[in-house]
Amino acid sequence: MPHPLFEKHRATLDRALAAITERGYWSAYSESPSPRVYGEGAAEAGKAAFDALLGKPFALEQPGTTGTTGHERSPYGFDLGITYPKQDLDVMFAAVARAADDWKRAGPEAWAGVCLEILARLNQQSFLMAHAVMHTTGQAFMMAFQAAGPHAQDRGLEAVAYAYAEMQRVPQRAYWEKPQGKNPPLRMEKVFRVVPRGIGLVIGCCTFPTWNGYPGLFASLATGNAIVVKPHPGAILPLAIAVKTARDVLLEAGFSPDVVTLVAHEANDDTARTLALRPDVKLIDFTGSPAHGDWLEQTAQQAVVFTEKAGVNQVIIDSTDDLPGLARNLAFSLSLYTGQMCTAPQNLYVPATGIETNEGHKSFDEVAAAITGAVQKLLGDPARAVEILGAVQNAGIWNRVDEARAAGDVLLDSAIVAHPQFPAARIRTPLVLKSTSAARDRWLTEWFGPISFIVATRDTAESLAIAAAAVHDRGALTLSVYSTSDEVLADAIAVAEDTGVALSINLTGGVFVNQSAAFSDYHGTGANPAANAALTDSAFVASRFRVVQHRRHVTD
Amino acid sequence: MPHPLFEKHRATLDRALAAITERGYWSAYSESPSPRVYGEGAAEAGKAAFDALLGKPFALEQPGTTGTTGHERSPYGFDLGITYPKQDLDVMFAAVARAADDWKRAGPEAWAGVCLEILARLNQQSFLMAHAVMHTTGQAFMMAFQAAGPHAQDRGLEAVAYAYAEMQRVPQRAYWEKPQGKNPPLRMEKVFRVVPRGIGLVIGCCTFPTWNGYPGLFASLATGNAIVVKPHPGAILPLAIAVKTARDVLLEAGFSPDVVTLVAHEANDDTARTLALRPDVKLIDFTGSPAHGDWLEQTAQQAVVFTEKAGVNQVIIDSTDDLPGLARNLAFSLSLYTGQMCTAPQNLYVPATGIETNEGHKSFDEVAAAITGAVQKLLGDPARAVEILGAVQNAGIWNRVDEARAAGDVLLDSAIVAHPQFPAARIRTPLVLKSTSAARDRWLTEWFGPISFIVATRDTAESLAIAAAAVHDRGALTLSVYSTSDEVLADAIAVAEDTGVALSINLTGGVFVNQSAAFSDYHGTGANPAANAALTDSAFVASRFRVVQHRRHVTD
Repeated sequence: MPHPLFEKHRATLDRALAAITERGYWSAYSESPSPRVYGEGAAEAGKAAFDALLGKPFALEQPGTTGTTGHERSPYGFDLGITYPKQDLDVMFAAVARAADDWKRAGPEAWAGVCLEILARLNQQSFLMAHAVMHTTGQAFMMAFQAAGPHAQDRGLEAVAYAYAEMQRVPQRAYWEKPQGKNPPLRMEKVFRVVPRGIGLVIGCCTFPTWNGYPGLFASLATGNAIVVKPHPGAILPLAIAVKTARDVLLEAGFSPDVVTLVAHEANDDTARTLALRPDVKLIDFTGSPAHGDWLEQTAQQAVVFTEKAGVNQVIIDSTDDLPGLARNLAFSLSLYTGQMCTAPQNLYVPATGIETNEGHKSFDEVAAAITGAVQKLLGDPARAVEILGAVQNAGIWNRVDEARAAGDVLLDSAIVAHPQFPAARIRTPLVLKSTSAARDRWLTEWFGPISFIVATRDTAESLAIAAAAVHDRGALTLSVYSTSDEVLADAIAVAEDTGVALSINLTGGVFVNQSAAFSDYHGTGANPAANAALTDSAFVASRFRVVQHRRHVTD
Repeated sequence: MPHPLFEKHRATLDRALAAITERGYWSAYSESPSPRVYGEGAAEAGKAAFDALLGKPFALEQPGTTGTTGHERSPYGFDLGITYPKQDLDVMFAAVARAADDWKRAGPEAWAGVCLEILARLNQQSFLMAHAVMHTTGQAFMMAFQAAGPHAQDRGLEAVAYAYAEMQRVPQRAYWEKPQGKNPPLRMEKVFRVVPRGIGLVIGCCTFPTWNGYPGLFASLATGNAIVVKPHPGAILPLAIAVKTARDVLLEAGFSPDVVTLVAHEANDDTARTLALRPDVKLIDFTGSPAHGDWLEQTAQQAVVFTEKAGVNQVIIDSTDDLPGLARNLAFSLSLYTGQMCTAPQNLYVPATGIETNEGHKSFDEVAAAITGAVQKLLGDPARAVEILGAVQNAGIWNRVDEARAAGDVLLDSAIVAHPQFPAARIRTPLVLKSTSAARDRWLTEWFGPISFIVATRDTAESLAIAAAAVHDRGALTLSVYSTSDEVLADAIAVAEDTGVALSINLTGGVFVNQSAAFSDYHGTGANPAANAALTDSAFVASRFRVVQHRRHVTD
């Protein structure tokens, strides 16, 4: 009989399995924070639940706890005051190994059922999660609700669906009968068992801890692995809530909660590297800096390593039949969460001679002015601006803006914005610089945060050539092009496919290059240095489990 | 319109696609060398084609050829005298890059169609290939015909089917419509393109160049990659024939033949490492020694590396209801191709107190005598023996037998066998040694070749514990158990699943632990040190390509 949690969530899984074959629009978890969806009082209850966590030890009972850690500070200007268990890794991993031994025998239906129940409970906690993510990452509330709640849950479910589909392709048993001419056939019975790799380590980031963390977590958990979650010291709470939820579900389902554990740690200690090199860690999912990601790929040889690092995202502006739409769309992409999205554009290439538009020929400066003007308009009202910008996650990003001013001519300076509710919040508008293709050394590195360059190129051919080289050499998660020419679009598509980066074409409406929709958009390609994997494809799940067979003769 | 070669072979591909979902018995290419299958005169024509190759340059025209190489010597005692082009790698890879650029745009149906046509032509050349493999690897003729011909072709087709199936799971395009409440929905069109990694390197071995070489070659080719084949200097001819066949098909199909190239080289030069570290090599399929395979996994960071190395294969003998069948079956497994199969058993564990059998209790020495007696009986007639043993591939294996005598007590010594047709052939029977669990340092390393140990253990529990530790620490491609106890079999299955090794149970008939059938048996698990991949599962193909998308708004 299938596992009861599998039965409970079977319809959702079936719909998700259909969605991944079509990759059109689908979402399992509503992005609307309306009481009609999440229930009357859900918003208030989520806020109360968050407030109740502040200033206390987080309730997580794990084996091998030796003390506490945790110094999170909200980018909106206050200390969370939450502490988390500090782990003796050897003691904890011994318990994880015991828990894993039972979990690995449960089989794909139990794995999927437990994952789906965890996701359902995370969905119920979307308001709590929104506050947790807002006050660790700096995302504005609505973005935190959507991206860290339903959108992240969708990404998790997508990973479960891919994992389940891939395991289903392995028949559980086979009857093998080989003819032997006039002699009786050879007959064997074969059993094929899906076995997990062992322990999966999830290394979280400080900007999108759940959206980037769930795919690896659920892909590994759904293939029978135990999970150790190592959050970024600046954004522990969101993943602590996820771990606690997972442990509750596991326990209720009759498994050891130690199938999923949390390792919080002090900033700048060596916990990430120590964990990553443990021989019993067989899978690693990492989101973070290229330096750390490259090190993991090269050094953690005992594990299969999935990384999302970073790169230089670019926009090629060749021509447009909707200049105001172009400007509005890009202004939003540059402003949203203060450019702290791994998908946010950094370099915008415009021919020095200007472009053709629906408003006639526009010079380089006019195009640049249209974009910076749209940013100013978008962020003109501080009360609205803070809901788009959110807050700057850390001082490094904040200070980088000041360093960046020297890297070009300032077209639009970054301004500090006061938050009506959080006076100590760290909020600033994007810095937009002007540069030329000759000065490419200045902007062909990643300037993570609200820093962008409008670059005068010789022509669109040069823009495309620069973009191609940058994706190949530096990596990129997104590429965007604006053109009314089918030929230019074909060239841009060829660049995207040759260098391996997702391309958005002529976005002038309500879809933004930074956005990647679960069940439809592949996030990352694994084909350029920005990431060695994609969310989500078969390759993201297929090596998280192995197949072990046994066979014996069939006798009558 | 689908590619004509895709249409031509569609029925075969469809049948293969069904086979990989069932993994029962199926074969596309007949293992019977009968004229009724391969045509009257096919055997003679194959022999003549082989003879015509001897003593001449092999006809392969590739860019960047700078001279010749090739010093193959048949294990049956004569020099082949065939030379192969020696390549300037930079010149050749420039041509490969040009060829790859066109090939990568052809798409999954053209890729599959070309692969299937190559396989069909290789099938037609199965007699030529049999002689080529016999006189490079030392396999006896019938084994060379089957294993290097139809069985290898089946493994190649299996890889094509997995690759095609995995690519088919990516929709080519999607329509995405996201509701926006009372506003018009957001509508986008998305295109998903399968793009290959780039260039795949196939590093061949000297014992099963086609059986072990085709899966990686066809998995990479079927996903749109260009292929560089680097055969072992001792077994160039089989893969040269395969490369030439592929080049002929590519040219006829309108592609550059340089999509598939051969790099033959001198023994002990650094060609393998030079190739493996080229930045343009993005996939590596390797069969060979653990030292070289581990080095590749650790060093060739720019590539996805698939390895089949080696390990210590083991047989646990607990009890049996068919002692003569057990002995006959194991005798054949120890003798077949002189133990030069990566799947051949090396260590046989028997409780020191003996075992229960259908002939009553048998002491350790009686069990050992049954096995060695069966070997002697099997190989008693030299004319029959040479057809089972084949020849020893190289002097290293030959000399290892003499070194091995000191590693245990000789139960059955290795005897030199004269081949009636090839007096200078290097043929010898297996050496069977006796040892104890206390002396495990002697036999817990791989003794590749006709060397095996019958080890007295305390009991079956110790046998299982030794086997588990050996698979975990040393790796193994096969594990075998004989027992009449359901409990012992369950324990053996648990060991196999926990350590990740394929298990054969109570083989007493016409199936041998060394044998792995395409479309049914997974060869390797990727879960222990003997191999990091399996033939063939989704993980073997899913990361050989990437998906690159572009998206744009749909407007009415």
